[in-house]
Amino acid sequence: MDSMSPIERSLGQALRLAHAADGPPSLAAAMRYAVFPGGARIRPRLCLAVARACADDRPGLSAAMAVAIELMHCASLVHDDLPCFDDAPTRRGRASVHKAFGEPIAVLAGDALIVLAFQFLADAGRGAPARLPAMIGIVARAAGAPHGITAGQAWESEKDIALAAYQRAKTGALFAAATAGGACAAGHAERSWHPLGERIGEAYQIADDIRDVVSNERDLGKPVGRDASLGRPNAVASFGLRGAVARLEDLVASAIAAIPPCPGALELRAHITAEASRLLPRELARPAA
Amino acid sequence: MDSMSPIERSLGQALRLAHAADGPPSLAAAMRYAVFPGGARIRPRLCLAVARACADDRPGLSAAMAVAIELMHCASLVHDDLPCFDDAPTRRGRASVHKAFGEPIAVLAGDALIVLAFQFLADAGRGAPARLPAMIGIVARAAGAPHGITAGQAWESEKDIALAAYQRAKTGALFAAATAGGACAAGHAERSWHPLGERIGEAYQIADDIRDVVSNERDLGKPVGRDASLGRPNAVASFGLRGAVARLEDLVASAIAAIPPCPGALELRAHITAEASRLLPRELARPAA
Repeated sequence: MDSMSPIERSLGQALRLAHAADGPPSLAAAMRYAVFPGGARIRPRLCLAVARACADDRPGLSAAMAVAIELMHCASLVHDDLPCFDDAPTRRGRASVHKAFGEPIAVLAGDALIVLAFQFLADAGRGAPARLPAMIGIVARAAGAPHGITAGQAWESEKDIALAAYQRAKTGALFAAATAGGACAAGHAERSWHPLGERIGEAYQIADDIRDVVSNERDLGKPVGRDASLGRPNAVASFGLRGAVARLEDLVASAIAAIPPCPGALELRAHITAEASRLLPRELARPAA
Repeated sequence: MDSMSPIERSLGQALRLAHAADGPPSLAAAMRYAVFPGGARIRPRLCLAVARACADDRPGLSAAMAVAIELMHCASLVHDDLPCFDDAPTRRGRASVHKAFGEPIAVLAGDALIVLAFQFLADAGRGAPARLPAMIGIVARAAGAPHGITAGQAWESEKDIALAAYQRAKTGALFAAATAGGACAAGHAERSWHPLGERIGEAYQIADDIRDVVSNERDLGKPVGRDASLGRPNAVASFGLRGAVARLEDLVASAIAAIPPCPGALELRAHITAEASRLLPRELARPAA
């Protein structure tokens, strides 16, 4: 019996494209290590939830979109952990990719994961190529310059950091791609789906800030208090813990209010509410009203 | 009057997608620096020559394919120059990207150039989406794992290097993408166009090996004798200088023999002959028979 979730299965399918008996073994191993076991897969699950809400008529396309977004996320973690950025020795409770495979293979694994995201999307798009340009555009804008995750990370090298642009690019972009991409894969216009993702991304960023301050290292699987030590903005530092929690709850409410009309709006609302309840460390969550 | 070549114009068009007033300025500047001024643009020119030989019916598509291949090439140079690989202080006669912009921005510029390659391709594909999946597949396989340029670079981190696979991936893959991609953009089946690019790539690799040994640093714009110091295979070391030159000439002849039937085969043959004559340092070139 196959107990893997569809997302894990699709990710495995994508990674098989990167492996061959006559390819360099460390690169394929590092790519797999960067993707499995994963975190909460929050972005691809959001993408699929939106596709379902839009009466997903091409499950192969929405699955590929979810995979592309997760691969892009994994690639960014590999590169962000490099010595020239966060120099993180651990990730998800074990050695980071460059600690496990060396820095050259970590750089290349990130590169190859970015490539694989587009390759898997294009393969899935063979059956419905008309949707492909928009889908690739969504992933590319969320990943590249000037507004995607690479741009978000690049802001950290600027003397004058544009805070809102930084956070929108660093976290919001990939969440907005998850919602816009899920809708687009299901044949819906992407435009109205961006605000939902942006707000969820902002909520997620604040939840991350809160965890960065209050969690202990073992729970998070990466060093905590890191934002402060790196001089990064943190919502708890700006608004206090109570203020940050209130802001997070406002954002979740405004995200739900931003769900565009679609056949499965109710289920999507339930999905987002359930996900949001997992964002806060248990001791901070208020009981649902 | 605009004296820029069409390739430079298209590259400039692509790079404008990566720039915005509210994006991080160093990232956009580093991407531009990595692409302009370029080298010989040998891959995109080959791609366009093949498209023309195939009676290029979608110049926008073939131009985007040429751009995607060149952006991928530029991205690989930026990452290959990083301290964890070649640690090259210079490239094309001036500071390498990480020397000019710092290592974080160099990593991100490479990432964002990879993303931009697919984004530009997808944008151009809006008018002919049916060709897009194959075009993206060609670029992705040439860039990613297990057989593209990242795989080629990854072989250098393996204890047991598979020499033929290494060179095919490191140099051949992007040349094969140039010929297959040019044909595919023009609506021809890509399959028969791979051997031409592979052989040109192999010839180019040997020419590079020869230059690595005989050129002086000023001509090449990067440190020479580097293969030997890094313990990389070099055709001159294996076959002697005369043997390497003979091998290069054989490869060019066999590349020309591999041109598939197409409306513009004669012009393509002339293009490849002219390009090949520029591969060798002048003092080594034999006068044409």
